[in-house]
Amino acid sequence: MNDSKTLTTIGFDADDTLWQNETFFRLTQDRFTDLLADYAEADHLHDRLLAAERRNLGHYGFGVKGFTLSMIETAIEVTEGRVAASVIAELLASGREMLEHPIELLPHARQAVERLSGSHRVLLITKGDLLDQERKLAQSGLGDLFHGVEIVSDKKPAVYAQIFARHGAIPDQAMMVGNSLKSDVLPVLDVGGWGVYVPHGLTWALEHAEAPVGHARFHSINSLGDLPDLVDSLT
Amino acid sequence: MNDSKTLTTIGFDADDTLWQNETFFRLTQDRFTDLLADYAEADHLHDRLLAAERRNLGHYGFGVKGFTLSMIETAIEVTEGRVAASVIAELLASGREMLEHPIELLPHARQAVERLSGSHRVLLITKGDLLDQERKLAQSGLGDLFHGVEIVSDKKPAVYAQIFARHGAIPDQAMMVGNSLKSDVLPVLDVGGWGVYVPHGLTWALEHAEAPVGHARFHSINSLGDLPDLVDSLT
Repeated sequence: MNDSKTLTTIGFDADDTLWQNETFFRLTQDRFTDLLADYAEADHLHDRLLAAERRNLGHYGFGVKGFTLSMIETAIEVTEGRVAASVIAELLASGREMLEHPIELLPHARQAVERLSGSHRVLLITKGDLLDQERKLAQSGLGDLFHGVEIVSDKKPAVYAQIFARHGAIPDQAMMVGNSLKSDVLPVLDVGGWGVYVPHGLTWALEHAEAPVGHARFHSINSLGDLPDLVDSLT
Repeated sequence: MNDSKTLTTIGFDADDTLWQNETFFRLTQDRFTDLLADYAEADHLHDRLLAAERRNLGHYGFGVKGFTLSMIETAIEVTEGRVAASVIAELLASGREMLEHPIELLPHARQAVERLSGSHRVLLITKGDLLDQERKLAQSGLGDLFHGVEIVSDKKPAVYAQIFARHGAIPDQAMMVGNSLKSDVLPVLDVGGWGVYVPHGLTWALEHAEAPVGHARFHSINSLGDLPDLVDSLT
């Protein structure tokens, strides 16, 4: 273990930080708008689907199963009940295909986790469907590198504080690295930890947030390839 | 803490051990068969739904969201695509209602957990949708009594061994209490722990298993009211 007093623990987000995810949601959304093209424009369908996702988040939480249910609900709504069962069956199939998509690691993901797991306690901290997140971690081949895996229903400040405490770190010894300012960075800064933003080209609309300005524990990097040097510079 | 060398840790299953659950699934299944009564007999519909649940378990895991998706899939199948969108909408609504059903504690649940939490490390170990299980625990009012909460994707022997280890127990210091022989009792006996079966009148077909015969670490009790005395008798 690194003998730094300042940083002992590094949490990694999973989807769109370590591996591709949003791209599969976008492909499925395109299929959704194609299937319903006779009823409404693509933009309108996107808006209605996003509204359903937002409305259902408190019931379904994050993940593919809730997304599939929201697609079906939206299909019924926008067609005023005229949607064919064959279209619903296609939406079910789309959802199942998402639950089987192959894992495509993002650049430098393995190297960054490997390198830092030798010097720090590294955690995977992700939200979504429990089984699906476990499947993706298993298929990523990164599972053995993490000292802990935390699949949570939402990424709130108190959730991070509990996770860090469970792994023996106070927040200012802990860093979270991820592609969502809203879920990975801001709540960790909020409890006194370090937040590292690694932007991904595609971000789900419900994850949008403004970057903090001039915050001492906030950093932004272009890719995970820059993370080890950033960590070294802080310790 | 109890100074017993033999039993330090007691895990409780949640659904149908601490609170009612299967009864809500049965009510929803009845609604499902009513909605599709024009197409098939209730027994046939039950069989088809169960087959879909079994087939989809590897994709969806356990819980209400996967159950809802399986109901929709079965409705399309048994009607050969003729099901009305209004019926699908009703199935979506049924699923959402299940995610809001009030928590009804089973007899002696609070007293048993309260009593044993003073002498043992008590854990909640449950499978299902992450957010839904968290909601139910919060609404049960029992959350503060548990030393740890573990929501898992499946209850396999290795999962129990990991959980017990994480909480500082070797298996023969650990007991699991629940209504499912298949998920709560047999896998724990398998890793060398104690298994206590508390039958519930309603058990999901996919949870059926035979009770072990003459196993030294297996016990069956009529209700959680008998658990503290059983634990006392073992220590």
